[in-house]
Amino acid sequence: MGGFLLSFLSCHMRTSLRRLTVGALVLLGAAGTATAQTGATKIDSLAIRKIYDEALARGQSYENLRELTGTIGGRLSGSPEAEKAVQWGKITLEKMGVDRVYLQEVMVPHWVRGAKEKATVKGNKGKGLTLNVCALGGSVGTNGKLRAQVVEVRSMQELAALPDEKVKGKFVFFNRPMNPLYVETGRAYGEAGDQRRSGAIEAAKRGAVGALVRSLTLAHDDFPHTGTMAYDNQVTKVPGAALSTNSADELSQLLKADAGLTVELEMACQTLPEVKSYNVVGEIKGSKYPDEIITVGGHLDSWDLAQGAHDDGTGCVQSIEVLRLLKATGLRPERTVRAVLFMNEENGTRGGNKYAELAKAANEKHIAAMESDGGGFTPRGFNVEAPEATVRRLQQWQPLFHSYGSADFSAGHAGTDIGPLKGQAKALIGYECDSQRYFDIHHTAADTFDKVNRRELELGGASMASLVYLISKYGL
Amino acid sequence: MGGFLLSFLSCHMRTSLRRLTVGALVLLGAAGTATAQTGATKIDSLAIRKIYDEALARGQSYENLRELTGTIGGRLSGSPEAEKAVQWGKITLEKMGVDRVYLQEVMVPHWVRGAKEKATVKGNKGKGLTLNVCALGGSVGTNGKLRAQVVEVRSMQELAALPDEKVKGKFVFFNRPMNPLYVETGRAYGEAGDQRRSGAIEAAKRGAVGALVRSLTLAHDDFPHTGTMAYDNQVTKVPGAALSTNSADELSQLLKADAGLTVELEMACQTLPEVKSYNVVGEIKGSKYPDEIITVGGHLDSWDLAQGAHDDGTGCVQSIEVLRLLKATGLRPERTVRAVLFMNEENGTRGGNKYAELAKAANEKHIAAMESDGGGFTPRGFNVEAPEATVRRLQQWQPLFHSYGSADFSAGHAGTDIGPLKGQAKALIGYECDSQRYFDIHHTAADTFDKVNRRELELGGASMASLVYLISKYGL
Repeated sequence: MGGFLLSFLSCHMRTSLRRLTVGALVLLGAAGTATAQTGATKIDSLAIRKIYDEALARGQSYENLRELTGTIGGRLSGSPEAEKAVQWGKITLEKMGVDRVYLQEVMVPHWVRGAKEKATVKGNKGKGLTLNVCALGGSVGTNGKLRAQVVEVRSMQELAALPDEKVKGKFVFFNRPMNPLYVETGRAYGEAGDQRRSGAIEAAKRGAVGALVRSLTLAHDDFPHTGTMAYDNQVTKVPGAALSTNSADELSQLLKADAGLTVELEMACQTLPEVKSYNVVGEIKGSKYPDEIITVGGHLDSWDLAQGAHDDGTGCVQSIEVLRLLKATGLRPERTVRAVLFMNEENGTRGGNKYAELAKAANEKHIAAMESDGGGFTPRGFNVEAPEATVRRLQQWQPLFHSYGSADFSAGHAGTDIGPLKGQAKALIGYECDSQRYFDIHHTAADTFDKVNRRELELGGASMASLVYLISKYGL
Repeated sequence: MGGFLLSFLSCHMRTSLRRLTVGALVLLGAAGTATAQTGATKIDSLAIRKIYDEALARGQSYENLRELTGTIGGRLSGSPEAEKAVQWGKITLEKMGVDRVYLQEVMVPHWVRGAKEKATVKGNKGKGLTLNVCALGGSVGTNGKLRAQVVEVRSMQELAALPDEKVKGKFVFFNRPMNPLYVETGRAYGEAGDQRRSGAIEAAKRGAVGALVRSLTLAHDDFPHTGTMAYDNQVTKVPGAALSTNSADELSQLLKADAGLTVELEMACQTLPEVKSYNVVGEIKGSKYPDEIITVGGHLDSWDLAQGAHDDGTGCVQSIEVLRLLKATGLRPERTVRAVLFMNEENGTRGGNKYAELAKAANEKHIAAMESDGGGFTPRGFNVEAPEATVRRLQQWQPLFHSYGSADFSAGHAGTDIGPLKGQAKALIGYECDSQRYFDIHHTAADTFDKVNRRELELGGASMASLVYLISKYGL
C-alpha cells in the first residue's frame, strides 16, 4: 500500500463515519428492545469510546506485561517465580489505588522439570538423531535413560485395536495432528487434546513404558509444547513427553523405514510436596450495589519453558487494566468489579476452585465472571455460558461493539478459572480474540513478550472493560 | 490456557455448531430476499466450505510467498528485482495451468536509493547523534552533505503560520504522530500522510532546504518508514527523508534544549530514466459468460528496504491462490476470473492505470475488481466502492461469511490499483484484514516473510476466492 493518501484518507473517513452511523442506527434500532431490558443508550456508546480512548492513548497493560515477563518470566505453580508474580500482582494493584487488594491462600502442586530433557533415536544401524522434546506437566521422570521401541498411533481407538505384543514394553507415539480445517484453532486443540491428557494412562494400561505425544499446534517447527497430563491411580505411572511437530514427522518417517528403531528418553522431572500460594484480588467497590460482584481475571501462573506472555500474562494485565480504565475514565461502576489473578490454571485449577469456594462460603452474589485466557490478540468478541435469555440480553449490546470489531457475542465455553463459579454467577463470559497465532507459541519457549502487539492487547482490555462497565451499570 | 481439554473441546464444539446453525438460520432467513436478487443458497455455503478446506489443508500461497520474498526480495519498480518478480509471477501462473497467462507492457519510474542514508545531529556544543533515517521514495539527493538548522511543526497550518525567517534555509521537521485512537490504523495513516506526501513541497515553498518527516507508524521503534513523496514542477525540489519514531522523538527533545542545533543529512538517491516493465495477468475463462470479467489482484512491486512480504507479496500470492482454489475445488467460474499482479503501485500506479486503459480500449466488461493490499493478516471482510444498491446486494452474502469471521462488508475505499477501473467495473472491492500490525512494518526493513502467519494468509485467500466465486456465479 502506498499511493494516494488523500483518497485513502477520505475513503477511510467515509468508511469509519459510515460504520459509526450504522452502529448508531443499529443501536437506536435495538434501543426499543434494549431500553426495556438493558437500558443501553447513546450515552453508553460515548462511555465506551472514552474507555477505548484511554486504553489506546495511555494504556498501561503493555508496560505491565513487559515488567511481568521481563523481570519474572515463567512462573509455574509452586516455583519461586510464581511467588514473585503474586507479589508483583499485589503491588501493581496497590499502586493503582483501588479500594481493596488482598490474597487468597491456596495449596498448589509443585512439579519441577529438572535438567533439560533429551530424546535420541537409536536406529538398528545405530544412527542417532535428536528429537526436540519436553516433559509434559506432571509427568514422572525416566529414572535415568529409558530406551524402547516405538509404536505409532493416531487415536485411542487405534491403540485399543492393537494386540498387546505390539504395545508391551514400547513407547506409544500419539501422532494425530490438530485439524487445520477449523477456523477456530481452539476447537482443533480440544479435539487433539486427549493424546496429551490421557496418552500416558492409556499407554500404561497396555503395558507401554511411556507416551510420546505430538505437540498440540498447527505450526510446523522445532518447539515442543508442554501442557498438563493426567495419571490414574489404578494405573502404573509412565513418563509422558511432547515432541515438536517437525520431530514427530521425522520420527514417523523413520519408523516407516525402520519399525524396529528405538528411542532413548531421559527426563529428570518430578513432583514435590504441595506449596502454599495465592490468588491476587483487586477490587473497586460498587457505588450503588457493592454486594453485587463482577469478576474479571486471567491466570498468573504459566508454564516454565518461557515467559508466559500470551498464556496468560496478557489476561492478567488486561484484567488489571479493566480496573485502571474504570478509574481513569471516572466511570465509577455501580456494582463491585474485581480483578482476579488466578493461581494454578495450568496444572490444577486450584486457584479457580478456591475462589469459587470462598465466594460460596461468604455467600457472595456474583453477577458475572469474565476470563481472558486465549492470548492478547485482536478482539473478536465474547463467549457466554448462561441461560439463553441472558445470552440474548448480552447480545443486545453487540451494536455498541461493532465499530470496535469486537461484536461477536456467542454462546460457548467461557474459561477454566471461572468455570467453578457456574451456578453461582449469572453469566460466565470468555473474552474471545483472534485465535490463529495462539497455538503456534502456546506452552513453548516462544511464548515471549515480543510476540504481543501493544494495540491488540490494549483493544482487548478496552473491550473487556466496556462490557464489564455495561454489566456494572445495568446488571444481568 | 491449559486445564481441562474435554470441557474445552465439548464447549468449543458447541460454539462452532451453534455458529454454523446461526449462520444457516440467518442464511435461510435472508434467503427469501437473497434468492430473489443473488440466488445465494445452502449449496453456496458448501462450495465456500470446500474453498476454505482446500486453502487450509493444501494452500500454496505461503510457499509462493516464501519463494517470492526469499529468492527475489525487495522489488521496486524499474529495478532488476522487479523484472525477476515479473518472470516469477508469469512462471508461477503458467505452472498452475490456468487458461491464459500474459504480460501488459507499461513504462515505470526508476528511482534508486543509492548508498545508505546518513543523518547526524550537530549540536552547538558539537555533540553528535545519529538519527535513523531513510530517503522518501522519489526524493532528490542531498548532493553531498546538507547541513542546516531545524524547525519543528505538527501541521501544514503551523508551517504556514511561521514567519519566513523561521523557515528559510532550514529543514522543516514534520512531527505529527499518527492518531492512536482510531481502531482502523489505515485511517490514522491517511490523516498523517500529508506530511510525507507534500512536506517537501510545502517546505520548499517557504525557502527550506529539506523536509524531515516522522515515520508513518503507531509503533515506537528505530525503523524509518519510506514511501512515495510528491514534487511540484513550479517549486524547487528539496530532499525529503523519514525519521524513525524514536529518532523523531529524540530530535524533538533535543530541539527543546537547543533550538539552534543543526542536522547534517546525506542521501545519494536519484531518479533515472523510465524503464519498461509489466503487469502479470493469469486468467480462468468463464464457462458461461467468458466476456464478463472479475479481476482480483495485488501489487508486485515493493519498496526496496525489505522483502515486501505484507506489502504486497501477500496480495499477489492470495490473488494467484484464488485461481488455484477455483481450479483445485472444481468450482469452475461461470464468468472469467483474472489474477493481476500490478506493477508500480508504490510510486506511480502506472500498472493500475495501464490495466484500466487497456480494458477500456478493448471494451472489456468488468463485473467487479478486487484488491488485496492491506497485508496478509486475519480477514475481517471487504470494503466496497459501488452504488448503494450494489453494496446492499453484496451484503446479502454476509451470512455465508459469518462462520469464517470475514463478514464485515462495508462501503469504503477499495484499493489504489483497481481505482482506475472506477466507472468501468460495477464494483470495486477491497479485501479487508486486521489492521493492527500492518503499519508497524509497512515500508520498512522489517516487512519480511517471518512476519506472515500461514493460516492468516490462507484464510484471506479463501475469503477472497469465496466472494469471487459468488460473483462469478451470480454476477452483480
